[in-house]
Amino acid sequence: MRCVVVGAGIIGLSAAWELARSGVETVVVDPAPAGGATAAAAGMLAGVTEFHYQERDLLGLSLPAAAKWPSWAAQLEAASGLSTGFRPGGTLVVAADSGDRATLADLRAAQAALGLAVEEITTREARAAEPLLTPRLAGAFRAVGDHQTDPRRTAAALVAALEALPNARLVAARAVRCGAGAGPFVEYDGGRLDCDEVVLATGGGMVRAGGTGEGPVREGLALEGLPAPLRLPVRPVYGDVLRLRTVPGGPLPSGNVVRGLVGGQSVYIVPRADGEVVVGATEREDGRAGVGAGGVHRLLRDALRLMPALGELDLAETIARARPGTPDNLPLLGRAAPGLVVAVGFHRHGVLLSAAAAAAVAALVGVPAPPGHAAGPAPSDLVPFDPAPFDPWRFS
Amino acid sequence: MRCVVVGAGIIGLSAAWELARSGVETVVVDPAPAGGATAAAAGMLAGVTEFHYQERDLLGLSLPAAAKWPSWAAQLEAASGLSTGFRPGGTLVVAADSGDRATLADLRAAQAALGLAVEEITTREARAAEPLLTPRLAGAFRAVGDHQTDPRRTAAALVAALEALPNARLVAARAVRCGAGAGPFVEYDGGRLDCDEVVLATGGGMVRAGGTGEGPVREGLALEGLPAPLRLPVRPVYGDVLRLRTVPGGPLPSGNVVRGLVGGQSVYIVPRADGEVVVGATEREDGRAGVGAGGVHRLLRDALRLMPALGELDLAETIARARPGTPDNLPLLGRAAPGLVVAVGFHRHGVLLSAAAAAAVAALVGVPAPPGHAAGPAPSDLVPFDPAPFDPWRFS
Repeated sequence: MRCVVVGAGIIGLSAAWELARSGVETVVVDPAPAGGATAAAAGMLAGVTEFHYQERDLLGLSLPAAAKWPSWAAQLEAASGLSTGFRPGGTLVVAADSGDRATLADLRAAQAALGLAVEEITTREARAAEPLLTPRLAGAFRAVGDHQTDPRRTAAALVAALEALPNARLVAARAVRCGAGAGPFVEYDGGRLDCDEVVLATGGGMVRAGGTGEGPVREGLALEGLPAPLRLPVRPVYGDVLRLRTVPGGPLPSGNVVRGLVGGQSVYIVPRADGEVVVGATEREDGRAGVGAGGVHRLLRDALRLMPALGELDLAETIARARPGTPDNLPLLGRAAPGLVVAVGFHRHGVLLSAAAAAAVAALVGVPAPPGHAAGPAPSDLVPFDPAPFDPWRFS
Repeated sequence: MRCVVVGAGIIGLSAAWELARSGVETVVVDPAPAGGATAAAAGMLAGVTEFHYQERDLLGLSLPAAAKWPSWAAQLEAASGLSTGFRPGGTLVVAADSGDRATLADLRAAQAALGLAVEEITTREARAAEPLLTPRLAGAFRAVGDHQTDPRRTAAALVAALEALPNARLVAARAVRCGAGAGPFVEYDGGRLDCDEVVLATGGGMVRAGGTGEGPVREGLALEGLPAPLRLPVRPVYGDVLRLRTVPGGPLPSGNVVRGLVGGQSVYIVPRADGEVVVGATEREDGRAGVGAGGVHRLLRDALRLMPALGELDLAETIARARPGTPDNLPLLGRAAPGLVVAVGFHRHGVLLSAAAAAAVAALVGVPAPPGHAAGPAPSDLVPFDPAPFDPWRFS
């Protein structure tokens, strides 16, 4: 069996590795692997604290995905010989003012009603866990099951794991034409690959430049051989993300992920073992690919309000990328046509869901799980994410 | 006659061009031309608004330097065929709160007493000149004689002008040893240049990493043949600088330089003709070469308080570089020994003073001004800046 995966973001690379280690002959086509949203993502594996109102259907995918991550990271590190940056540890959720505390308490009640483990703690307990937190907090919560990984390292490990397999390869080129139906294929600048299945994992790359979705899958990428029109309503939700870096002799965050609400706006602070501290993220739909000055200001202002000592760190990098947003914030994950599986639109959840999406793609393609690994989701588990046809009211 | 200039920042390049166009055989030695403070500098040609208390001696150099700039830029553009980014236009000085206004009014009185042309205007007049200014200003002033240039473009034009002259060349290498006295020379990685005069223009590069000055001229650069020990008390004063960029359809600054005082802290906003908007600058002596997160936050906060619409621009670049600071904020500009002229320690004033420093170096070396150009400063004009020996109380 032969599969061609279009797109080497965290979803495409994970799906390709799952297919390849299951024995499928696998080719990944992407001119710039891990150069899209994966390059910006903070890597919070936050099945619990990423829960938003009206995203209940996502829990069916996100909670198993979060549980799967420790073993997924261990397998990937063994296969690649590289660190993924996976770091277990809790997440602190803190409120800057009393309104923020009320908002977070309401959300915590909704999470508790769904069985999600978030507990209120004292601000003293929060500061014991992360001494860099300001004493001027209005409230604090803890989610013990939410870990983190480093998406850039994870993607590099996936590439290395793929390169180590004789039945997998990467083609550094841009796909221009895909065919579903009787004879699936992918054409790219400089070649053509015939296969049994095309896996479309074009993530943010599928978003039309400056567009609002519901058009062609991607500017310059033609889809052929479909039995019916395919609507993939993905739109670019830009985010600005900062990477700070600890300096010798300077303050050192303890390692907990900190999610804050500051005057009604969210900010997160993700400290890595290597001294990188990721601060994010804005959400804007203005079509601007550059880093927004106002967004950087807002992130620094709110992060420094929660952890003033972060001002002593270096600002090593600012980056903006588009998340592939969908109307209901659920991914489009399923079979779109014979010979064509779609795994796009993962919005804020791509890294968390990558391991689960990989297993889902393998199940959709019809390959059994590798020996010794749990089976992927049953087809019924994926009904809410079925991309063909997309029902704009599916979440009602 | 043959001169070797060590250092290709704005001072070294300007001195080299002045020497070369006067007929001197000129070599500039630098591994990374214009890579130091010149790469960060905003390029305000602010003889008036850069005036600080206790820097009166600087006016003898800075006011003629500012007056010289329009013709210097025109000559350089004609010689290189490149734009310098020189942009005439006034500078607005604005106060965020009443304390800031009182501080600026006191400074304005000190400037007026020295004959510097700064006039108070209404905040309405300030907003007519720059409509992006917030209406919530406490006060405003205008200095009509302060212009701007683009230091990166100016440096590129100087390099091109040098390369166009048969008697000038650049050596992309690091100087390791200089000799004054009977047989001046410069040794660099891979070669040696004998000459009649060495011009030391090592700017921030002369600063010892993490040091406080008064030691060797530069880590790894030996000075020989001096009749007496030479003290060059230069220390690194780091600054964080931002480059914003206007976006299609977004707000467009009018072109005036805006200098603000916001809660007692200075911020400047320099809009260029090509859409770049430079925001700076912090001053820190913490020895950290990286961009400071707290500094970036402070600059964005204060710039957005003065001109809120700047938040709609892209943040294109953050950069930190060391200014070469001296104990009295005056440059060290003069003859240090036979065969050795020094032009270092220009602190915040390098770009403004570059044209005047170039003429001073040519006069110190003893070459006449090029035909049709004004003579350089008389030796007596340079007495306050004499580097040999440096008197730590010379400003008392």
